[in-house]
Amino acid sequence: MTRTPAIRRTGRPGRPGYDLDSLLAVAVKVFNDKGYDGTSMDVLAERLGLSKSSIYHHVSGKQELLELALNRALNALFAVTTEAGATEGRYIDRLEYLVRRSVEILVAELPYVTLLLRVRGNTAVERRALARRREFDTFVSSLVAAAAEEGDLAPDLDPDLVARLLFGTVNSLIEWYRPRAGITADDLADTVISMTFDGLRRT
Amino acid sequence: MTRTPAIRRTGRPGRPGYDLDSLLAVAVKVFNDKGYDGTSMDVLAERLGLSKSSIYHHVSGKQELLELALNRALNALFAVTTEAGATEGRYIDRLEYLVRRSVEILVAELPYVTLLLRVRGNTAVERRALARRREFDTFVSSLVAAAAEEGDLAPDLDPDLVARLLFGTVNSLIEWYRPRAGITADDLADTVISMTFDGLRRT
Repeated sequence: MTRTPAIRRTGRPGRPGYDLDSLLAVAVKVFNDKGYDGTSMDVLAERLGLSKSSIYHHVSGKQELLELALNRALNALFAVTTEAGATEGRYIDRLEYLVRRSVEILVAELPYVTLLLRVRGNTAVERRALARRREFDTFVSSLVAAAAEEGDLAPDLDPDLVARLLFGTVNSLIEWYRPRAGITADDLADTVISMTFDGLRRT
Repeated sequence: MTRTPAIRRTGRPGRPGYDLDSLLAVAVKVFNDKGYDGTSMDVLAERLGLSKSSIYHHVSGKQELLELALNRALNALFAVTTEAGATEGRYIDRLEYLVRRSVEILVAELPYVTLLLRVRGNTAVERRALARRREFDTFVSSLVAAAAEEGDLAPDLDPDLVARLLFGTVNSLIEWYRPRAGITADDLADTVISMTFDGLRRT
């Protein structure tokens, strides 16, 4: 569904102009600060410096903003699952590729991924997002299990548990990583992969 | 500071009796469900089936309940830092010991650790807890740095980043682990350590 933005950036200082993307960016920041349930359309309008009717030119309401935001994170993650790095070659390498790209997406889309990871399933939109997250987790588990079958995974590990721990490590980045911290996405991904695939202990 | 419990377990059905520990357990559950800021003494009293004045026989208010709960988690974690396993031997082994014991404490004290990890620093009690968390993180970083100096850590890793990732992995367990899930603390700790110290990739 496309909508004609009612207000565009004008360049005039003090007159906020938004297209859907920039409106969504502000909404996601407010959702992350105050919680989705704690954010009313009135609060959003105030933070955007817009009337509620101006917001309704872009979206049907805060549910649609939430869905757009969650889908932005989910679509980025699912896109990786069809990339060559995740669909060709040995499964342990596909798994490593998926972890690396997930770190990159987390860094590039930090507010959107943060919102996604805090979803608890209070609304239909949130439950759909949780269902897609489970689908992604199932894909990760299948790569871990296939890597074990190919003999490339350390033995005696439970694939579902490994999948949870791997993405627990990746997802924990939202708790402290901020783009200004001077650590690049590459540094992060290299260290995550070094720790989880090669291990910290020098053998 | 000790207080004389005003109400003890009576064994009579339908008459809730609490000592400080059991009162704290209920309070922590409510804090985790509704958020500390969203929990009033009225809500606590209702969930406990007590009058507010009965709660005040045990504690001075919800701030004290929060502090007792956070200190329970923090004291357990800090106790590990003085155990022999964390203070003797090669540093990589001390680090591994600290990770294993931290998983055990997370499992044993799950609601308390969960509350601790969600603290954002809105009150003096919370800020003190955050300061103690930073002190713990510094201890972890120092072990990682010392393990690197002893030549037991994979090269070219940033000690602070490794410390964050290691405890990011451990702390991510609160997002999904539930005691009834059929995975023991030992299983969890073994798999966390296998992944992070030895690596998933079979070499």
